[in-house]
Amino acid sequence: MKKRVAYCVSDHTGVTVEAVAKSVLAQFPAVEFSLIVLPFIDSPEKAQAAAEQIAATPDALVFSTLADPALRAGLRQSHARLFDVFDLVAPAVETVLGQAATPSGGHTHGMTNDYESRMDAVNFSLALDDGLQPQRLDQADLILVGVSRVGKTPTALYLALQYGLRVANYPLTPDDLEHGKLPDVLLANLPRLRALTLSAERLAAIRHARYPDSRYASLQQCRDELATAEKLFARHALPVLDTSRMSVEEIAAHLRHP
Amino acid sequence: MKKRVAYCVSDHTGVTVEAVAKSVLAQFPAVEFSLIVLPFIDSPEKAQAAAEQIAATPDALVFSTLADPALRAGLRQSHARLFDVFDLVAPAVETVLGQAATPSGGHTHGMTNDYESRMDAVNFSLALDDGLQPQRLDQADLILVGVSRVGKTPTALYLALQYGLRVANYPLTPDDLEHGKLPDVLLANLPRLRALTLSAERLAAIRHARYPDSRYASLQQCRDELATAEKLFARHALPVLDTSRMSVEEIAAHLRHP
Repeated sequence: MKKRVAYCVSDHTGVTVEAVAKSVLAQFPAVEFSLIVLPFIDSPEKAQAAAEQIAATPDALVFSTLADPALRAGLRQSHARLFDVFDLVAPAVETVLGQAATPSGGHTHGMTNDYESRMDAVNFSLALDDGLQPQRLDQADLILVGVSRVGKTPTALYLALQYGLRVANYPLTPDDLEHGKLPDVLLANLPRLRALTLSAERLAAIRHARYPDSRYASLQQCRDELATAEKLFARHALPVLDTSRMSVEEIAAHLRHP
Repeated sequence: MKKRVAYCVSDHTGVTVEAVAKSVLAQFPAVEFSLIVLPFIDSPEKAQAAAEQIAATPDALVFSTLADPALRAGLRQSHARLFDVFDLVAPAVETVLGQAATPSGGHTHGMTNDYESRMDAVNFSLALDDGLQPQRLDQADLILVGVSRVGKTPTALYLALQYGLRVANYPLTPDDLEHGKLPDVLLANLPRLRALTLSAERLAAIRHARYPDSRYASLQQCRDELATAEKLFARHALPVLDTSRMSVEEIAAHLRHP
């Protein structure tokens, strides 16, 4: 397989340009790419150093998100092929809006208020993890419910970190399942509930990794719990998401846009 | 201020296209944009429905990451101005690589292995939160150290969720600070340590929100703790990151690319 190095150069974290590069390069499966991320390239000196590193790499591709045209010009001294998101998209947007882009405005992540609301959301989601503090469930944006190890905690934390949502999670224990109805504290918050489920095989594998050969991890136990839980979800008409083949980004996007 | 709606249309989660749209639109500060994300547009029927919704919105801009050209064509029936990342970037990459793009290859997030390693990392980071299980610190990729409420837990969870790194965190208590050296369990793992610090004003504000008017939250106490901690960091030549004006993405990118 052919190999190529692809640089992802950003004046900021590099999260966006790395995502763009991965999406585009995934369309070329015959080439094996190794990605090198160069974040915080925000001065002519750093652009110069990046250009030298790139120039020393044979046949490198370069994806970039550099808001300042002078930095892009600096990077171009590497003579590598440069795909800059602003170069490619901003001129078309300028035409449509009838106004010129302001290069200095390119950052979207540095806002302190946004940081604080997301940190508050993380603290909330940790405080209400695994059924803790049920008296505060009415303060949640979303409440994830499901059987043990179905992925509630990581999903709640991701929604808090990425989107600033206050996401509680509540495990359905075998006791809850036997009662044939949701606990009262959940029924009082029905519109906020989102149910997660999984294939029994995946759940058993996840539980086995933690408690090998336990009854808790047996395929039969997983099947029984999931089937009973799904009946409960149907009885209360909860939105249910089967996360068996999903990444945490996919789960979060489905929950955010139901 | 002029107002415009910008749609972010994706055949997947929409995370990438939303980041691109926000970066580009931040360069047009004279217009107020409201973003509408339409994820999982992965069939002709959904593209048709999205096109109808967009056509009903006056002057909408549309950013998209639709790997399948047929879906992009469907979206174009809205007659809105469409900026598709693949349309704009893939042809140039095709030229450089000398091969055609394969539209079906556009997904990068759906990998189960990746999901599991990230969930393992989250579980690790939760298990070793706040100094828990110090005997396992040698299994960590990174160990964040700093005084109470400096942002260790959210940063550790973000690095775990986003990059699959196993990140422990260890609080420096006033007792630790009085000893004038790092606890032995940290000294045994020196290369893994990353120190976090903050301005005393920010730290006091964060502590006040939790424990108003306490000695713990007083500016003097925060100043003393931070100054002593920074001396400790210098003594052991730890890499130190001042997170006062940073988002969690920025903190994570700095820690990942020291």
